Amino acid sequence: MQPQPVITVLAGNKPVTGLCELQREAEVRVTDAAGLPHALAGADILYLWDFFADGVRRAWPAAGSLQWIHVPAAGVDKLMFPELVASDVVLTNARGVFDRPMAEHVLAALLHFAKNFGRALAQQQQKQWNRYATSDLAGASVLVAGTGSIGRCTARLLTAVGMQVQGLGRTARTGDPDFGTVHASADFAAVAGNFDYVVLAAPLTPASRGMLGREVLAALKPTAVVINVGRGALADEAALEEALRTGQLAGAALDVFETEPLPESSGLWALENVLITPHLSGDATHQLPLLAQQFADNLAAWKSGRPMMNVVDKKLGFVAS
Amino acid sequence: MQPQPVITVLAGNKPVTGLCELQREAEVRVTDAAGLPHALAGADILYLWDFFADGVRRAWPAAGSLQWIHVPAAGVDKLMFPELVASDVVLTNARGVFDRPMAEHVLAALLHFAKNFGRALAQQQQKQWNRYATSDLAGASVLVAGTGSIGRCTARLLTAVGMQVQGLGRTARTGDPDFGTVHASADFAAVAGNFDYVVLAAPLTPASRGMLGREVLAALKPTAVVINVGRGALADEAALEEALRTGQLAGAALDVFETEPLPESSGLWALENVLITPHLSGDATHQLPLLAQQFADNLAAWKSGRPMMNVVDKKLGFVAS
Repeated sequence: MQPQPVITVLAGNKPVTGLCELQREAEVRVTDAAGLPHALAGADILYLWDFFADGVRRAWPAAGSLQWIHVPAAGVDKLMFPELVASDVVLTNARGVFDRPMAEHVLAALLHFAKNFGRALAQQQQKQWNRYATSDLAGASVLVAGTGSIGRCTARLLTAVGMQVQGLGRTARTGDPDFGTVHASADFAAVAGNFDYVVLAAPLTPASRGMLGREVLAALKPTAVVINVGRGALADEAALEEALRTGQLAGAALDVFETEPLPESSGLWALENVLITPHLSGDATHQLPLLAQQFADNLAAWKSGRPMMNVVDKKLGFVAS
Repeated sequence: MQPQPVITVLAGNKPVTGLCELQREAEVRVTDAAGLPHALAGADILYLWDFFADGVRRAWPAAGSLQWIHVPAAGVDKLMFPELVASDVVLTNARGVFDRPMAEHVLAALLHFAKNFGRALAQQQQKQWNRYATSDLAGASVLVAGTGSIGRCTARLLTAVGMQVQGLGRTARTGDPDFGTVHASADFAAVAGNFDYVVLAAPLTPASRGMLGREVLAALKPTAVVINVGRGALADEAALEEALRTGQLAGAALDVFETEPLPESSGLWALENVLITPHLSGDATHQLPLLAQQFADNLAAWKSGRPMMNVVDKKLGFVAS
């Protein structure tokens, strides 16, 4: 019998779903960010159960035995520090598990604005009965930035409700099975004015950082609504806030921010045309067992030497299709 | 050339879309409720452009020449007074035009609760960052009460986003193209506990009045959410409010009420698990030209003696399929 691998689980104070099952397969060290440098010494695998935690880079000098890091999250931008990128450590993520909740969150946000529920709720607080007209999503156009599994699941759901969907990706193409037309990210400003809604669902990489900047904001229809479920830094947050405040942009549903938690000092909190959610678009109640199973499946692959799922291309910063 | 028909348009103070076109086809008398008895004398057609207005029954003694009433709305319950029901006057409605906006409103309301945007907005007002888990609509079950065109359009849209949809109608059946299984209204309480969401999209008739009463409310899952886009009196509003207040029911999105506008004294306004909209689920911005065109088409049919569309079965209280 081979020796059991050593798995360090960065759990913070989140209960680790599937811990008992994992303990049958490995020597498991559950720790928090403070204990990480100690718990990482001699570990084969790092399992970032609390994927909002920081501390991996700080603990890196203790990672000499490390072969694999698994993040049960979609975005891995916080792990793209040079030491890890340059190392042989394999990085995997939870590609797929968040797709459907995030697609539904995007649809919910689009409908929140199309049906102007923000106004309804404001009126309700004042016990005011004022009818107003709303718009349909059917036939409306939406550009989904990000052609990974989240963007694709979102595109399929928005197509299913009758929207006209196009994509924004690294390279322009037509005939995409989910998007039909995909525009090149370099052309974002040139095409932005054609859409009623823009969804940011791209990974944060040096190439995508700040993609929703002043130039694109100026090109958008004043009636347009932006949804960001990717990363806060995909947008120039100051420019976005200004566009929302001045009416250059009609509304935004923001689930991610340059700094999280969003500081109390942010002007975004008080804007009536903004829906703020605290980085939860992917968090469905049924999800923790799926995340645990995904790691268990990859662990079985790793132990037997079979190909692992969802290996991040560390040059790109995401799992390449 | 035949004499022009006389059309009395009850417009309230709403601008009548397509008025100029109508004036080429008929002698048009635009009036409000107060002027209706006078304007109705000698009229062939009554066009209830302001379909929220009352006053038709009061003006009925002046309706001796009347042959046709058109209501650019879906529900005709307010017109089901005995004199009109017993008369030969044809009643038509705007079946179809409201289907899609209402179906989208229902989907928006379902997602508002599934994603708990009410909590997000309450947290936003307090500048609070507290993550919470949400649920998916995919795979969730929904019972749509009402198998007319609104219920069917709603069923198709909810099916498209992955929900498990069944219907509630006058008679039980299986193999329905939009609902699959349709339960009999008489069995509402028996089946209510099987669903995560219940949508009321039925016409208000003596048979449907109060269908969501104490018995059904007691049978619903405590996690269930009710959406009412039909008529307020489909529910026992006092019992519904109590169920929402005590947690017997998780939430409700209410677009219609026993008394409209909803009185300031109603306890529903202040309930955090209620989304109140002011009877607008069918009101899309693109709709007025569609309503005008629908009347114009029916007017052409009426003038030429061809069969008219959307003739209400006055015994049933709605357009029979």
